[in-house]
Amino acid sequence: MKLVQYPDRNEWTALLQRPVFDAAVLEKKVHKILDKVKKDGDKAVRKFTKAFDGVKVKQPVVTEKEMENAVSRLPGELKQAILTAKDNIRQFHTAQLSTPDVIETMPGVQCWRRSVAIEKVGLYIPGGTAPLFSSVLMLGIPAKLAGCKEIVLCTPPQQDGTVHPAILFAAREVGITKIIKAGGVQAIGAMAYGTESVPQVYKIFGPGNQYVNCAKQLVQSAGIAIDMPAGPSEVCVLADETANPAFIAADLLSQAEHGPDSQVLLVSTDLSLIEKTRAGLDKQVKALPREKTALQALDNSKALLVKNMDEAIAIVNEYAPEHLIVCCRDEDAVAGRVVNAGSVFLGHYSPESVGDYASGTNHTLPTNGYAKSYSGVSLDSFVKKITYQKLTKEGLMNIGQTVITMAEAEGLQAHARAISVRLDQINNQS
Amino acid sequence: MKLVQYPDRNEWTALLQRPVFDAAVLEKKVHKILDKVKKDGDKAVRKFTKAFDGVKVKQPVVTEKEMENAVSRLPGELKQAILTAKDNIRQFHTAQLSTPDVIETMPGVQCWRRSVAIEKVGLYIPGGTAPLFSSVLMLGIPAKLAGCKEIVLCTPPQQDGTVHPAILFAAREVGITKIIKAGGVQAIGAMAYGTESVPQVYKIFGPGNQYVNCAKQLVQSAGIAIDMPAGPSEVCVLADETANPAFIAADLLSQAEHGPDSQVLLVSTDLSLIEKTRAGLDKQVKALPREKTALQALDNSKALLVKNMDEAIAIVNEYAPEHLIVCCRDEDAVAGRVVNAGSVFLGHYSPESVGDYASGTNHTLPTNGYAKSYSGVSLDSFVKKITYQKLTKEGLMNIGQTVITMAEAEGLQAHARAISVRLDQINNQS
Repeated sequence: MKLVQYPDRNEWTALLQRPVFDAAVLEKKVHKILDKVKKDGDKAVRKFTKAFDGVKVKQPVVTEKEMENAVSRLPGELKQAILTAKDNIRQFHTAQLSTPDVIETMPGVQCWRRSVAIEKVGLYIPGGTAPLFSSVLMLGIPAKLAGCKEIVLCTPPQQDGTVHPAILFAAREVGITKIIKAGGVQAIGAMAYGTESVPQVYKIFGPGNQYVNCAKQLVQSAGIAIDMPAGPSEVCVLADETANPAFIAADLLSQAEHGPDSQVLLVSTDLSLIEKTRAGLDKQVKALPREKTALQALDNSKALLVKNMDEAIAIVNEYAPEHLIVCCRDEDAVAGRVVNAGSVFLGHYSPESVGDYASGTNHTLPTNGYAKSYSGVSLDSFVKKITYQKLTKEGLMNIGQTVITMAEAEGLQAHARAISVRLDQINNQS
Repeated sequence: MKLVQYPDRNEWTALLQRPVFDAAVLEKKVHKILDKVKKDGDKAVRKFTKAFDGVKVKQPVVTEKEMENAVSRLPGELKQAILTAKDNIRQFHTAQLSTPDVIETMPGVQCWRRSVAIEKVGLYIPGGTAPLFSSVLMLGIPAKLAGCKEIVLCTPPQQDGTVHPAILFAAREVGITKIIKAGGVQAIGAMAYGTESVPQVYKIFGPGNQYVNCAKQLVQSAGIAIDMPAGPSEVCVLADETANPAFIAADLLSQAEHGPDSQVLLVSTDLSLIEKTRAGLDKQVKALPREKTALQALDNSKALLVKNMDEAIAIVNEYAPEHLIVCCRDEDAVAGRVVNAGSVFLGHYSPESVGDYASGTNHTLPTNGYAKSYSGVSLDSFVKKITYQKLTKEGLMNIGQTVITMAEAEGLQAHARAISVRLDQINNQS
């Protein structure tokens, strides 16, 4: 981790640069796979699963029997942990349900919004080096709470052709019954266009590698909604001299182990804390099974020493981290000054990993600076808010002239007439 | 307007098809303009304004003096109408403000969401045949309420180089001070990349023609958020025998006058109502200044006669209209069965044009079937919801083992260690 002391404001942009990744180079390749899936359906998905995952899948839909087998094999302690996390995530997302609130903007003019579930959604759960059953909870729980009718889950099969039992257990607990053994671009294509076994969906959610993200961007241009654009995971720790360097080193490593392209950033007003944290990193990284990955990620990472808390907060907001851990005096006051971040962890006992798994907040968050304009996934992500208005005769009489005047000024005579034809009738009746 | 009687369910998809428009053919052209603006800034914007709008703009930023001139020239009645609409829109969007609600998912584990304004937003207001000052209200009011710090408004200059006074008046009333005389792709590029006079923004809003929409899609792929994808405007009227055919004809025409590619759809259980409405269209269209445009739009439009209200509602949900007018018995019950729509107008005295201008709801809505997965613009569109969590020592002790078990099962040892390093310290202290 490189130390940069008191950087000038005009150096910030360069210092906070993420590893640039040009999706355009992948586009052609990804486009071809998507087109093939669109055209040949299941056959194409099977072909790509064999080619990319090295697995021959005969029956892509997970059966009830496979589900039961998996559930019976899972250790009780892990089941319990998943259920505890589920409870917390469910509680936090239940509080996001909303009921319509009717606003009478003028006498007789009532307006409201009603949240309605997106009918068909697709959840992508990566396989690869780790079975991300936690993402099943993070996406499946709000999808179910919102009331989505059709929830499809795609996840790549393991080498033996099965799906990891923890993924199946989490899916069953959440209430997802349609699970497809397919991953990568072909899975995104299957959900976007539909195949014989995979229903077409209106919106696709979930993390993935650069190919999956490129595929999501491409189907978005074709009209399928996606949760958000994505990039490598990242954490920023904002710490002063009250912080515990061993804790911070552990937090930085928990992000660094994700992948060699993960980013970790330490922003502090205290040089001694930075030095102790760096020493802690050197010591703690040796104990990790993913030591090599973490070391690569740390190579791209920086510790920034800044003059004061104002500057520290300004740098954090400029970076717009996916995860922000705040370990300093008056953390609540600092929290209120955070403008750009995905999820914020306050105080010395709130490591990022609690939010990754079980505190209740969602772990599907905007990376790559997208926190400047995007929110993480929430119940909102699974609904549309339809607006309604209902006018009485009195309401139309109150608002009519306003609409007519504005429509005529915009040169839209028929808009004005839709009012006047009604007002004429009301006046003739009375 | 073509009548289709009792279509089979398997014909629906074809019947409800929107005019297909292939954005790919525009992409190359639009890309070139965007690249030029990215490279040459104001100079390129000036060049394209001259080439496409035929106007030479020396000073792109509207001055305070131009603002005052415009305001003094605007008729008092129009000013009053704009202020009334502003009040209603403001009331409805104010009710969308939210305060954080702290959820304690476990003792000592507190989670909440906080809405924070997107700092820099760009609003695009088309010029062309109509000065859409109503869109200034629909985008500017929620942007201001959300607390966006930098709000940039781009709109093409009129032939004499000025901006329409109603646009300037609406902007001033809303509190927007940065108004740029630029339209089309070059305006989207200027806001996406920034130029000498136009600040770069994080999210771009607003309606536009196919070039503008293509530009928005392209900058979205480059990381700038946009409000939503767009297509031609459309209305669907759902009516039974209780409806007034003259009202419905007027509503259909108010959509048809937008442009030759506008879509209007009438779904009804009553043949006689359809016939009377068609007769009403023939009669009313003659009175319109935009008769030719409306007739072209009606040429692409359909009246569907269906068996019963269940089928009618199913067709509407399959079509997912931007605007839905419900003129039938028990409209409130029907309202609750609408799953896919942008904005819904209930009863005989709620024409679409009240929502276009002044009822209070937003008129920036998902077209082209996007209502299946997208909401219209609201206050939510101008904020990010940042999640927070704060754990006490007790909270971490309650949740710690759950996180450790899950992290280890996902093969992420450093995630588990971020918990155990803290639990060890807590245990050593006690």
